[in-house]
Amino acid sequence: MAKITKVSPFAPSTKIELYPIKGIEFSIGNIGLYKHKNDLMIAKFVASSVVAGVFTKSTMCSDPVIWCRKSLKQSNGNIRGLIVNSGCSNTFTGPQGMQIITKSTAALASIMKCDTSHIYVSSTGVIGVPFDENLIPNAILTLEATQDYYEVVRAIETTDTFSKVATTKLNINGHDVHITGIIKGSGMIEPNMATMLCYIFTDANIEQPLLQACFNDIINDTLNSITVDSDSSTSDTALIIATGMAGNPKIININQDYISFKAALYEVALSLAQQVVMDGEGAQKFITISVLGAVSDASAKIIAKSIANSPLVKTAIAGEDANWGRIAMAIGKTLQECDRNKIIIKFGDMIVASNWQRSIDYNELLLGQYLKNSKIFIEVNLGIATGQSTVYTCDLTHEYIAINADYRS
Amino acid sequence: MAKITKVSPFAPSTKIELYPIKGIEFSIGNIGLYKHKNDLMIAKFVASSVVAGVFTKSTMCSDPVIWCRKSLKQSNGNIRGLIVNSGCSNTFTGPQGMQIITKSTAALASIMKCDTSHIYVSSTGVIGVPFDENLIPNAILTLEATQDYYEVVRAIETTDTFSKVATTKLNINGHDVHITGIIKGSGMIEPNMATMLCYIFTDANIEQPLLQACFNDIINDTLNSITVDSDSSTSDTALIIATGMAGNPKIININQDYISFKAALYEVALSLAQQVVMDGEGAQKFITISVLGAVSDASAKIIAKSIANSPLVKTAIAGEDANWGRIAMAIGKTLQECDRNKIIIKFGDMIVASNWQRSIDYNELLLGQYLKNSKIFIEVNLGIATGQSTVYTCDLTHEYIAINADYRS
Repeated sequence: MAKITKVSPFAPSTKIELYPIKGIEFSIGNIGLYKHKNDLMIAKFVASSVVAGVFTKSTMCSDPVIWCRKSLKQSNGNIRGLIVNSGCSNTFTGPQGMQIITKSTAALASIMKCDTSHIYVSSTGVIGVPFDENLIPNAILTLEATQDYYEVVRAIETTDTFSKVATTKLNINGHDVHITGIIKGSGMIEPNMATMLCYIFTDANIEQPLLQACFNDIINDTLNSITVDSDSSTSDTALIIATGMAGNPKIININQDYISFKAALYEVALSLAQQVVMDGEGAQKFITISVLGAVSDASAKIIAKSIANSPLVKTAIAGEDANWGRIAMAIGKTLQECDRNKIIIKFGDMIVASNWQRSIDYNELLLGQYLKNSKIFIEVNLGIATGQSTVYTCDLTHEYIAINADYRS
Repeated sequence: MAKITKVSPFAPSTKIELYPIKGIEFSIGNIGLYKHKNDLMIAKFVASSVVAGVFTKSTMCSDPVIWCRKSLKQSNGNIRGLIVNSGCSNTFTGPQGMQIITKSTAALASIMKCDTSHIYVSSTGVIGVPFDENLIPNAILTLEATQDYYEVVRAIETTDTFSKVATTKLNINGHDVHITGIIKGSGMIEPNMATMLCYIFTDANIEQPLLQACFNDIINDTLNSITVDSDSSTSDTALIIATGMAGNPKIININQDYISFKAALYEVALSLAQQVVMDGEGAQKFITISVLGAVSDASAKIIAKSIANSPLVKTAIAGEDANWGRIAMAIGKTLQECDRNKIIIKFGDMIVASNWQRSIDYNELLLGQYLKNSKIFIEVNLGIATGQSTVYTCDLTHEYIAINADYRS
């Protein structure tokens, strides 16, 4: 499964130091879904912990997604445990799917002495292949404890070529509050509510409804603004867990503390989202697409996504070819309101087209040099109103085909 | 430009015999936009000829598209001439774009002694690069006459690896009526009203409004049911020209003659549409995707297109991998109404999944053998109503990347 032949050029050469989050214990292990790495991680949370989540909107969503949605309601956003496996997405697995979940959550709930609705689950990997429902329950007692987030995220990765983490710290009323997040995913990435699997941990003391509101607010411009291949996973899950151990006065309404926390959370979520794109299957270029001057932010986002998902745009950039006509094409096919004569298209600081023609300053040589960069900025100004959106994507390379033409073999 | 490294495996080894259409004179030539082949074709029509057309809905549509739309109204669907060049799409070319068209149509109109609105134009090729407005007018008198449709279509091709034609004959009231069509296109193909450039010629005697109605009716299941790469061209144009020379009693209402003609036209248009997919950039597999049992035909089409455009589905088929989970994913991400437990997914005659699980008859070996075929049938039955749609596409291969990563170089 998942033949990884090349590591992303954006893979960091060193690990960053991550703030530990008080009130969480991790353990990891192998249940045989992968041979070369761990495939199971479990997190245990102190009783004060609350959780907020966003999930795929896919009508083919997996049983773990259905379970999490239900648990979030039944537990009033309380959480004591999280079980995540890689190597099998537990999607399209018939009655066996829920069987795996009920047995696994029961096993962890009995250790945590809590209701099973306080245990959350995710699975990622191939669709349609069930596994034995006793694998996770049998493994739970034998797992290895770890405080290393890099080990934790490694256990939930599939085609990822580097481990994606982010961390930050803020001060609320004299108390240090920490946020540390992990994320996995590099293919089947155009999240619609969340990216494949994302877990953000914080010791902030915050009421659950506010945590959920805050998470909902930042998702649109972070995890929901990335695309690798326009394909939305059946398992997309993003959870934020707040243990409340930082000791800050509890955030119970939208005050300055809430705003500070939201800004810090945005920073972590955006970093995680961008790292998923940087580890996009076969990615050699990281592309930021900003659309300005649209009739609405939503319209700008539709256009930005159309450019980001166009295989012709993505292959041109892979070939370091300033084929901006394909950007015009991708704008046009959305049928979004625009005036072809007002559009300005830029690569970096260079205007390549305006007034429905190639720019008079158009310089193929300079553009060619610009496109050799590994990070490419494309700006489209529609010039008709003030709506805007920024979307992040990667190029489409031979490596994407190589990875996906025989993912299962 | 347009590096073609491999010919489609679907390229026919022999030419078929095409019915000539009375009342049309073709000529072809080279204006320097291509080195290795002709890049200009002109057709002249007898005065009785009428035309119907469908065009891209792209908001970035080219000047030739704007011209054709306007001419269709101004001329009341009468046509005396058609000018088509390849090698430059005359899109995003500023005021020069319309300059090229007014000079070219004026030159042909003076020969035909008609209004310029009776002359139609199309251009295909790279976006954003203008050419000299005298190139076409200067060439018109020196072109070489031909009756060979293969030579005609060759002059309008870009990345096409084989020439795509179709022909049929029907009898209306004792009169032989012929339909012969040509089409070009293999990339930037997910037509939204028409495919890149398609011209269908007939000697049928039919009123123009009925010709347009008939064309509109058959487009949805033919030219609008194909996708190569989800990218819609700025130049998509499909015209049908009826010279009226067959001598059949004029079709002036929706009678049996109209129905027979429409059936024959459907056959030609479907063949042309399918040939575009077979010549899809890098295509090694021709894939037919039928979605049944949806809440509506429109809903079925959204799902079929989602499967057809999914890079993960397309790469799996390129790799001859029966990764049907990706089909489930592509259904789910559309957010179209469905019940995951009722879906049945088939490859050819083999059920691979139903009841939200892999089929009990699932046989990886037989599936693997099936996927070695060059024509693959995928059927999805949603099982909730009667809406249906069939869409045609091709796989996504290394060759697509190779062609498009340096199209302009």
